[in-house]
Amino acid sequence: MSGTRRKILRVLEGETLSPPPIWLMRQAGRYLPEYRQVRAKAGSFLDLCYSPEHAVEVTLQPIRRYGFDAAILFSDILVIPDAMRRNVRFTEGHGPEMDPIDVGGIERLDLTPVMEHLAPVMETVRRLRLKLPDETTLLGFCGAPWTVATYMIAGHGTPDQAPARLFAYKHPKAFEHLLAVLADISADYLVAQIDAGADAVQIFDSWAGVLGEREFAAYAVAPVARMIASVKARRPKARVIAFAKGAGYLLNDYRQKTGADAIGLDWSVPLDFAVELQKDGPVQGNLDPMRVVAGGAALSEGIDDILQRLGSGPLIFNLGHGITPQADPENVRLLVERVRGGGR
Amino acid sequence: MSGTRRKILRVLEGETLSPPPIWLMRQAGRYLPEYRQVRAKAGSFLDLCYSPEHAVEVTLQPIRRYGFDAAILFSDILVIPDAMRRNVRFTEGHGPEMDPIDVGGIERLDLTPVMEHLAPVMETVRRLRLKLPDETTLLGFCGAPWTVATYMIAGHGTPDQAPARLFAYKHPKAFEHLLAVLADISADYLVAQIDAGADAVQIFDSWAGVLGEREFAAYAVAPVARMIASVKARRPKARVIAFAKGAGYLLNDYRQKTGADAIGLDWSVPLDFAVELQKDGPVQGNLDPMRVVAGGAALSEGIDDILQRLGSGPLIFNLGHGITPQADPENVRLLVERVRGGGR
Repeated sequence: MSGTRRKILRVLEGETLSPPPIWLMRQAGRYLPEYRQVRAKAGSFLDLCYSPEHAVEVTLQPIRRYGFDAAILFSDILVIPDAMRRNVRFTEGHGPEMDPIDVGGIERLDLTPVMEHLAPVMETVRRLRLKLPDETTLLGFCGAPWTVATYMIAGHGTPDQAPARLFAYKHPKAFEHLLAVLADISADYLVAQIDAGADAVQIFDSWAGVLGEREFAAYAVAPVARMIASVKARRPKARVIAFAKGAGYLLNDYRQKTGADAIGLDWSVPLDFAVELQKDGPVQGNLDPMRVVAGGAALSEGIDDILQRLGSGPLIFNLGHGITPQADPENVRLLVERVRGGGR
Repeated sequence: MSGTRRKILRVLEGETLSPPPIWLMRQAGRYLPEYRQVRAKAGSFLDLCYSPEHAVEVTLQPIRRYGFDAAILFSDILVIPDAMRRNVRFTEGHGPEMDPIDVGGIERLDLTPVMEHLAPVMETVRRLRLKLPDETTLLGFCGAPWTVATYMIAGHGTPDQAPARLFAYKHPKAFEHLLAVLADISADYLVAQIDAGADAVQIFDSWAGVLGEREFAAYAVAPVARMIASVKARRPKARVIAFAKGAGYLLNDYRQKTGADAIGLDWSVPLDFAVELQKDGPVQGNLDPMRVVAGGAALSEGIDDILQRLGSGPLIFNLGHGITPQADPENVRLLVERVRGGGR
C-alpha cells in the first residue's frame, strides 16, 4: 500500500506532481565527504559495491542530507561483466578496465555464476527497503546491453566506443548474441532487485549517442525492449525508466519502441523536444551537472527553465548525467530547495 | 569560370548531382602510407601544417589516389590558438595540449601576430589551387569558436568538455568575449583562405554535441552565424559548410540560424531527419567511419542507405566524422567506386 504513495512511483504512473519529485544520478558519490570516508575504508570500488553494509550506508547518505524522493541502489553497471568473470578492475585515476572479449569468448560465456555472484546486491536492496523512509522510492538499476557491451569489447572506456562499433560491423551475429545474453541476464537481475524490494528500475544506456540509426534500432532499442518485456511479463507492476544518453532525435519513439514507462533526458535535449516527449509520458532530467558545479545564476536559471517548461506534466527532476565529484554539496542543497520551492 | 563547373560548388548552390560528389573528412591522413612517409620527415605535426611544401603534398595524395571531388587544405583547427601563442603541442600518443587560458588571459589575448603566423597556410592554399585538377573543389576550413575554445579553456581535449562548460557558466561574459574574438579572427582567416584560392570553406564544430539548448544557441549558433555573416559580407560568393557534430535535434534550424549553405551530418543523424534537413538545402555526410574500417557488407550497406535516402536531393557524400588511421586504403577505393557507381 505504502508504495502507491511514493511520489516517484506516482509520476511513473503518469501523475503530474507540483513540485516534481527529485533525485540525482550518482547522488551517492564522491562530492559527499561522508561518501569519501566510507569509500576509503571499504577496500576497492567493487568491494564497496558488494558490501551490503557499506553500500547501504552510502546509498542512505544523500537521503539523510537532502531527503531526495528516491534512493538509488549503490552499485555499478559493470557488476554484470564482473559476475561473468571478465576480470573487471577499477583503478584509481583510470576508468574501469576488464579483459576484452572476442567472438570465441562470447560463445564461451558462462552465466551460471552470475546471479549467485550478485547476491550481495540483493541483500543491499533488502536492507535498504527496511531502512529507507516509507515515502522514499527505492530504485534499482543496471546498464543497457549496448553500453555494457562497449566496455566488454574494448576492455575499457573510449570516447566514442569505436571498438564496439567496429566489432558490431564485423561480427554482427556474435555481437547480437552478446546483447541478447546481456539483455536476458540483466532482466533477471532487475527482477531480482524488484523482488528484493526495489520499487522501480532504471536502465542506463550511457553510450547510446554514438550509434547510427540502424545500430540504434538493433543495439540500443531492441535489447532494452527485450529486457523490459521480460521484466514486465514476470512482474507486471514493475516500472522502468530508460535513459539513452546522447540519443538526440532518436528519442522520438524510444519510449514507444522500448516499452519504458519514463525516459531519461540528458542535458543536451532541448526543452521544446522534451515537451513533445512528455506528451507521451513521464520524463526525467535534465539539468547540466556543470550547472551544479557552477552554482549561482547558472544553477537557478537551469532549474527554472526545466520547471517552467516541464513542470506542468509528469516530471522527475534530475540531472542530465551523473553529478560530478567537484560539485559543492551546498549547491545540491540549494538545488533541492529551489525545485521544492517551485523555482522563480 | 572553371569554378562553376566544380561539382561540390554546384551542390553547395543547391543542385542535385547523381552520383553525388564525394570527399572524406581527414582524407589526407594516417591511413595512407604516403602520408605517414611525409609525416615522418616533416618534423612536428605543426611543422607539417606550416610547411607549404609538405602540406601541399599530403593534401594532394588522396586526390591522386582516389580522385575525390574536393581537396581539403591540410591543417588543423588549433592553428588559431597556436597563432595566439597559446603554446600548442601535439605529442605522439597524446591529444593536443596547450596552456589553459583564464579570464585574465582572455582579456590579454593579442591578435596582432595571428594572420602573419598563418601566412604559410595561405601559401599552401595558393600552391594547391595551381596544382589541383581544374574540376577539384578546394576547401578551406577552421574550427568553430566553441570547439576551439574548449581546448583553450581545458588546455587539452576532454570527453565531454566539462571544463569549458563550467567556465562558461561561471564566467559567461569572458567566455562570450573569447568566442567573439575567435569568431572574428576565424572569419578573417577564412576570408584569407578564400582570397588565396579556396572555393568554399567548412567550419568544424566537433564538440557542439555537449551543449545544452541555451548554450548551443549562445556558443555554437551565434558565433558561427557571426563568422558566416562576416565572411559573406566581404566575399558574397563564398560558400560555407557548417558541421556541428552531435547536435542531434538541434540541427533542426541550424542552417537557418547560422546562414550556412550546407550542413554536415554526423553518423548518428538518422536518415529520416537528414531527409527533412535536406529539404532546406544541401547536406553532407554521413557514413560511420567504422564502416570503412569494417569493409564488406557493413560498408556497402551504409553507402547504399545514404544514396537511397539522400541521393535524390543535394548531397555531398562524406563520412560522419574523420576517417580513422586503421581504415584500409582499399576500402576507401571501394567506397569511392560504389558511390560513383550509384550503389546497388
